[in-house]
Amino acid sequence: MTKKYVYSWGNGEAEGSSKMKHLLGGKGANLAEMASLGFPTPGGFTITTEMCDYYWKNGKVFPQELKAEVDAAIEKLEKISGKRFGDNENPLLVSVRSGAAVSMPGMMDTILNLGLNDVSVKALAKLSNNERFAYDSYRRFMQMFGDVALGIEHAKFEEKLNIVKREKGVTGDLELDAEDLKKVVELYKEAYKEAGLDFPQDPKKQMWAAIEAVFGSWNNERAIKYRAINGIKEGELLGTAVNVQMMAFGNMGEDSGTGVAFTRNPNTGEKKFYGEYLLNAQGEDVVAGIRTPEPMEKLNEVNPEVYKQLCDIMTKLENHFRDMQDIEFTMEKGKLYLLQTRTGKRTSAAAVKIAVDMLKEGLITEEEAVMRVKPADIEKLLHPMFDAEELKKAQYMGKGLPASPGAATGMAIFSADKAEEKAEEGIPVILVRPETSPEDVGGMNAAEGILTATGGMTSHAAVVARGMGKTAIVGAANLEIDENAKTATINGVTIKENDWVSLDGNEGKYYAGKVKTIKPQGLHGDIAELLEVADKLADLGVRANADIPRDAKVAREFGAKGIGLCRTEHMFFDEARIMKMRTMIVSKTVEQREAALSELLPFQKADFKGLFEAMEGYGVTIRYLDPPLHEFLPNDEEQMKEIAPQLGISVEELKEIVENLHEFNPMMGHRGCRLSITYPEIAVMQTKAVIGAAIEVAKEGKKVRPEIMIPLVGKVDELKFLRELVEKTANELIKESGIDLEYKVGTMIEVPRAAATADQIAQQADFFSFGTNDLTQLTLGFSRDDYGKFIKEYIKEGIYESDPFQHIDRRGVGRMIKMALNDGREVNPLLKTGVCGEHGGDPESIEFCHLVGLDYVSCSPYRVPVARLAAAQAAVTYKRRKRVND
Amino acid sequence: MTKKYVYSWGNGEAEGSSKMKHLLGGKGANLAEMASLGFPTPGGFTITTEMCDYYWKNGKVFPQELKAEVDAAIEKLEKISGKRFGDNENPLLVSVRSGAAVSMPGMMDTILNLGLNDVSVKALAKLSNNERFAYDSYRRFMQMFGDVALGIEHAKFEEKLNIVKREKGVTGDLELDAEDLKKVVELYKEAYKEAGLDFPQDPKKQMWAAIEAVFGSWNNERAIKYRAINGIKEGELLGTAVNVQMMAFGNMGEDSGTGVAFTRNPNTGEKKFYGEYLLNAQGEDVVAGIRTPEPMEKLNEVNPEVYKQLCDIMTKLENHFRDMQDIEFTMEKGKLYLLQTRTGKRTSAAAVKIAVDMLKEGLITEEEAVMRVKPADIEKLLHPMFDAEELKKAQYMGKGLPASPGAATGMAIFSADKAEEKAEEGIPVILVRPETSPEDVGGMNAAEGILTATGGMTSHAAVVARGMGKTAIVGAANLEIDENAKTATINGVTIKENDWVSLDGNEGKYYAGKVKTIKPQGLHGDIAELLEVADKLADLGVRANADIPRDAKVAREFGAKGIGLCRTEHMFFDEARIMKMRTMIVSKTVEQREAALSELLPFQKADFKGLFEAMEGYGVTIRYLDPPLHEFLPNDEEQMKEIAPQLGISVEELKEIVENLHEFNPMMGHRGCRLSITYPEIAVMQTKAVIGAAIEVAKEGKKVRPEIMIPLVGKVDELKFLRELVEKTANELIKESGIDLEYKVGTMIEVPRAAATADQIAQQADFFSFGTNDLTQLTLGFSRDDYGKFIKEYIKEGIYESDPFQHIDRRGVGRMIKMALNDGREVNPLLKTGVCGEHGGDPESIEFCHLVGLDYVSCSPYRVPVARLAAAQAAVTYKRRKRVND
Repeated sequence: MTKKYVYSWGNGEAEGSSKMKHLLGGKGANLAEMASLGFPTPGGFTITTEMCDYYWKNGKVFPQELKAEVDAAIEKLEKISGKRFGDNENPLLVSVRSGAAVSMPGMMDTILNLGLNDVSVKALAKLSNNERFAYDSYRRFMQMFGDVALGIEHAKFEEKLNIVKREKGVTGDLELDAEDLKKVVELYKEAYKEAGLDFPQDPKKQMWAAIEAVFGSWNNERAIKYRAINGIKEGELLGTAVNVQMMAFGNMGEDSGTGVAFTRNPNTGEKKFYGEYLLNAQGEDVVAGIRTPEPMEKLNEVNPEVYKQLCDIMTKLENHFRDMQDIEFTMEKGKLYLLQTRTGKRTSAAAVKIAVDMLKEGLITEEEAVMRVKPADIEKLLHPMFDAEELKKAQYMGKGLPASPGAATGMAIFSADKAEEKAEEGIPVILVRPETSPEDVGGMNAAEGILTATGGMTSHAAVVARGMGKTAIVGAANLEIDENAKTATINGVTIKENDWVSLDGNEGKYYAGKVKTIKPQGLHGDIAELLEVADKLADLGVRANADIPRDAKVAREFGAKGIGLCRTEHMFFDEARIMKMRTMIVSKTVEQREAALSELLPFQKADFKGLFEAMEGYGVTIRYLDPPLHEFLPNDEEQMKEIAPQLGISVEELKEIVENLHEFNPMMGHRGCRLSITYPEIAVMQTKAVIGAAIEVAKEGKKVRPEIMIPLVGKVDELKFLRELVEKTANELIKESGIDLEYKVGTMIEVPRAAATADQIAQQADFFSFGTNDLTQLTLGFSRDDYGKFIKEYIKEGIYESDPFQHIDRRGVGRMIKMALNDGREVNPLLKTGVCGEHGGDPESIEFCHLVGLDYVSCSPYRVPVARLAAAQAAVTYKRRKRVND
Repeated sequence: MTKKYVYSWGNGEAEGSSKMKHLLGGKGANLAEMASLGFPTPGGFTITTEMCDYYWKNGKVFPQELKAEVDAAIEKLEKISGKRFGDNENPLLVSVRSGAAVSMPGMMDTILNLGLNDVSVKALAKLSNNERFAYDSYRRFMQMFGDVALGIEHAKFEEKLNIVKREKGVTGDLELDAEDLKKVVELYKEAYKEAGLDFPQDPKKQMWAAIEAVFGSWNNERAIKYRAINGIKEGELLGTAVNVQMMAFGNMGEDSGTGVAFTRNPNTGEKKFYGEYLLNAQGEDVVAGIRTPEPMEKLNEVNPEVYKQLCDIMTKLENHFRDMQDIEFTMEKGKLYLLQTRTGKRTSAAAVKIAVDMLKEGLITEEEAVMRVKPADIEKLLHPMFDAEELKKAQYMGKGLPASPGAATGMAIFSADKAEEKAEEGIPVILVRPETSPEDVGGMNAAEGILTATGGMTSHAAVVARGMGKTAIVGAANLEIDENAKTATINGVTIKENDWVSLDGNEGKYYAGKVKTIKPQGLHGDIAELLEVADKLADLGVRANADIPRDAKVAREFGAKGIGLCRTEHMFFDEARIMKMRTMIVSKTVEQREAALSELLPFQKADFKGLFEAMEGYGVTIRYLDPPLHEFLPNDEEQMKEIAPQLGISVEELKEIVENLHEFNPMMGHRGCRLSITYPEIAVMQTKAVIGAAIEVAKEGKKVRPEIMIPLVGKVDELKFLRELVEKTANELIKESGIDLEYKVGTMIEVPRAAATADQIAQQADFFSFGTNDLTQLTLGFSRDDYGKFIKEYIKEGIYESDPFQHIDRRGVGRMIKMALNDGREVNPLLKTGVCGEHGGDPESIEFCHLVGLDYVSCSPYRVPVARLAAAQAAVTYKRRKRVND
């Protein structure tokens, strides 16, 4: 059997269907579907995307057999419509449109009213009883065809049009009458001649030129760029289809008209038709905005029969396609035609409401409902947004990385301390810093939003802001921040201290001025219902990264089932504690160190109690001290002078300690479990705090599930050493308490060696938590503080498709994870596994986590809802695939 | 069949053999072997190591059946010797000695003259016609037995002995006569009584106590420590055997004597008997050094018959054991006994000479010859050494890490520039620095040796010194270097500028003062012959890491077959070139950068020509620019002020550039191929230099094999990008030249991601060179500049057995390498593979390289001979295993 390249439809029949999008394009497939369902869509035919592929692969020529197929399709169309190409009474006019499997609006070419010539234009004038309309259509067709199909410059036609306008002394097209337009037609014919061409009077010749033009437009610059930007890969699509469809005219009098309509409200999601129409008009009149359309309900007054038919069709279409539809319709002399139906675009709020409503209506399944909402929709709905109108009043300054979503407005403040002061006065503050450090955490917490000049998506500012759910923009390139002068300048715009500034964390754009924000709707109602459905479908659990009880509470409200990462060091940066931490660091003997640690113990224990209480019944994973100790000491002389006396040592001694702690590559230095192995007393103190807190909470009658996590393990002996230490300390405390308390000891997998020796490590671990931030750093050899120097170039050159700290590098880091999982589970089948890096909140990475069969992901509290949805979508997507494969 | 625990020998027969070392210990197995070969060794029996194991595993008791076996063995021994335990005419006296499968000299217990009691002592007096000797033997036995077997303090016996000495008014033992010694015996019996014990008159009781004592000594503190230090693992050995052997007496008159002898000269290796003896003496007299022994040739004059027999036996022993033997012999009343034979220890020079001589004599095979010499022997012979006597005159200062072997003496100089000046005046210089940086390279090259206070075995100073073959000690802990005062102080010893200082790079010890060095013998004669044999046997090729033509020449003289790593950046640190490099770095436009690069091109090209010429016929692997650019710029303000005007920019601009280039973790920053991807013009220039040089050398009619190596690749797209660039540039040049030149393009595998995606990378690579330094850094997450902070603790706690930068981490890094090899070869079976990290010169790591089937290792020129031997030894060792398994 030879390949079929042309698919016809019309008269309640169609050779194609909506399942054939890859071959017929979205438009063609839906038109076929509508036709075969008996909806009144003008007849036509589709030339397949395979022909486009053929055309480009064979030096832009068509195969022999195509001509016969197209001829047959035209014959069929003439029969169905009762019209004929070039007929002097009832001429067939068609549109020739592109339509790929993926919508690429406006990128490729379209030709309307094809079939008009010196003969058929007269017939059209008679039929429409409107000579002006007929000749205007003709001259428009000549212009469009000349431009699109034959490459005659648009300007050449404008010149001719202007001659007639000048002659008549008018300026607007509308002021030309039928006779004028006849002159234009004649002048246009000259324009063709001047280009060395003849305007083809034969409609078939017109059609072949149009078909070639549409296929040719698949690879125009615009379309190629669009595909690149939208991540459509070379070869993913075969090309565009060509749709040839009979024209319907909405401008044949007051019994004609045209309109667009949605089966539900695309802004709110309300289950109510929503649309508008214009009588005696064509689609382009609606678009041109010259006349104001009426709401579609009005049609009921004008033509109740057509209105009823339209509503009936819309209901049927939605039921058939099982999603909200966006349709184009035309009424030609009282006859209703559907020109297009497609899934309607909608706002985030509408997406959620429509999904939940349709689920309740029984129209879609739970699996479909969770697939109808994008994770980004959830994200948007849970953060404040700017009022779009208000935003126009602010002055755009620049764009940085959208590090943490939402919208924030406040007075620019250039130091963390000052930010705290101002916030206490009740003034909304935006903290503006070159970059942030752990000492800025108080100020960040007090601020509405954070703006930094440097740093990437995983910089300190970005990670902490996401954890706090604060809007943040980081790496605002070219923003010059002068800390002394307290100014931030870019492109000649300067904001000073106390000036209002506004951050759009979704886009990464920042503005000078105050902009009203719209409060988020919160996790209740439709969103909450949708996420409950998601939880039922997901295989992956979702936990939160939370360091303090307040964050744990937020996380639980957002649906987190446990804590996947509590970074204990964050507890040490608090003013009251950091001096004790420093005393510990400058200790000269084990005894001194133990004394300092024992002062930290009550603080840690109290925090852990809060975490256990907030997460009652769920696991709480507590990571032991991780960062290099120098992070707790000041670097500048001023601060040293201030602190040294408090520590009871000289400034020189402190300087020497800081110098000794200096590292060339701190990421790979004395940190993680290496600290607890060289100073076991740290692990002992932390165990006392974790287990002591757990015992106290358990005594309150609450269920506690502490999970102790050892960071940066690369060799099983490290874990063994610390596990023994932890067990000894913990078991003594438990025995003393007389309580039956279970706890787990596990490890981060973040050093490549750990992944490569997971069979050994799993023998000492109850769980593996993949620290994908550090695992990415070490596997790729990318310092996340430094990779900004080359990553843009890498992405530009296509060496990496995306930032590997944002979307997990499945082939490289992913292979390490799979190796660790395979080897680890082989020796320890009950091994619990999760991800606690920044990737845990990224839908694309969550899909990977689902595919490799992790037990859970853990992310910042404010991303928990997003992760819940993404987890469900991964499960549904791959269940579906499986069903197909079965 | 029940287990046999006792193996007898004597009278030309033996139940054991030299193959049973694991069961009988080294001594027992060799005694059995000697007896069964008919050599005159006193009869005896061995209780196996299995019994030792049993003894310790069963609460220190012996199994029932042992008594019967030992009784039978004693009976046999009495029969063979014609002597009886406790006999009043011809008493059997025995030694009871330890003897494990691995020699542990002096660590375990020994008892001599067992069997003496009040009866047999008289018989011994009669037989020896020397009453004093008999009673002296008796009291010595009582003392030794009491101490070793019954735990009576040594001091108790000394007290008693002193009583008799005081009574007689003498101070020395030798002044006591037979009667005095009889009194001592009586007093010793009292000493036993005072300890609540009786001296056992029954020889069998004596023996059982002695056996228990020997087995018990297996786990004394000394022995345990010895095993730990010598890397003998728990459970690797079953325990010690116990050897019970008839005593032979060399002190029974002038027809008796004792001596030790080597079958060849252990100092020089000369094929000539070498030994000494004492007439009328026991072994301990030789050891005590009271009398001076005679050279063994003298025995020919005294007793030509015994001498002839001895020589005959020595020849036979060496032929039998096929190695130089170290024997102990005793002549008892004209009868020659062999008490022990073992493989003789020898100097490095002797080891080489003996191996080569024995090979030529046909005594051993080529495989055996290469196994007879330790790689460390070769290393020692190729570097200067201190004269041991001279060294005693110098003042020991301290110990650092033995970073580069050899011995060096010179005047202490504290700056690189000064070192160059002094060296030009012909003064030998030791460069003393806190640490070295690339700018010190000139001074390092001018110096005899380098001493640094900080840094590890893979620090800059260590790596560069090894590359230059300079003696170096790094990380000299506690050495305080004051650069301004030009002093270095430790333990109160200070050396000032121009003071003489001496470095022992083999031991890591350094001395104040001038010490004469002995020049190395060089790679000719026996060593050269041995290494030629090694090359025949090895599977691994050996290449050198060499950056400049001079090093390449040295490497070739040392037998390197190609260059495995030329670090092109080392060429840029030269005074004449670094300014051009800096101009390149501070360039603002591509054009400026290209202009600066074009000035560097002639230098690079000239160097490459020299390398190609020096390595004619062999592959030369050239790595493209690797280090981060900030390494080429100064950090301190003074230097910036000097340099900025030369670069035509302001100091502020230079400062800003340096600041912008600063990285938090430079190891994982903007370096390696990342530089050439962001600045492709660098790769273009380097390709022009490599291929241009190759063309010129090829035109001279020489065979050139350039191999271009792209560093730090983590993703195949990086290599693809650069390979295309290289090929485009190279192929143009080759086409222009009209010459047929082949070249390879490959990559370092040093980023874990590269190992994990080797199947992709191998599609773009002609070779993989494992950069095990960086691969270890990233796989383990150990910064080699910082891991000193915890690695000692890690090794102390047994978390790592050894420094993973010294001996490759087979389980972790090794797994990454194996993964890369498997996956890479699967898609590219012709892939050439090697190692070019520091591990390439480490015998233990070379063994690993052989086992995983790499094609070559590459190491610093001065380690090439060591690597050649190690490569052969790995091949022989694992061929042998295979043969056993067949």
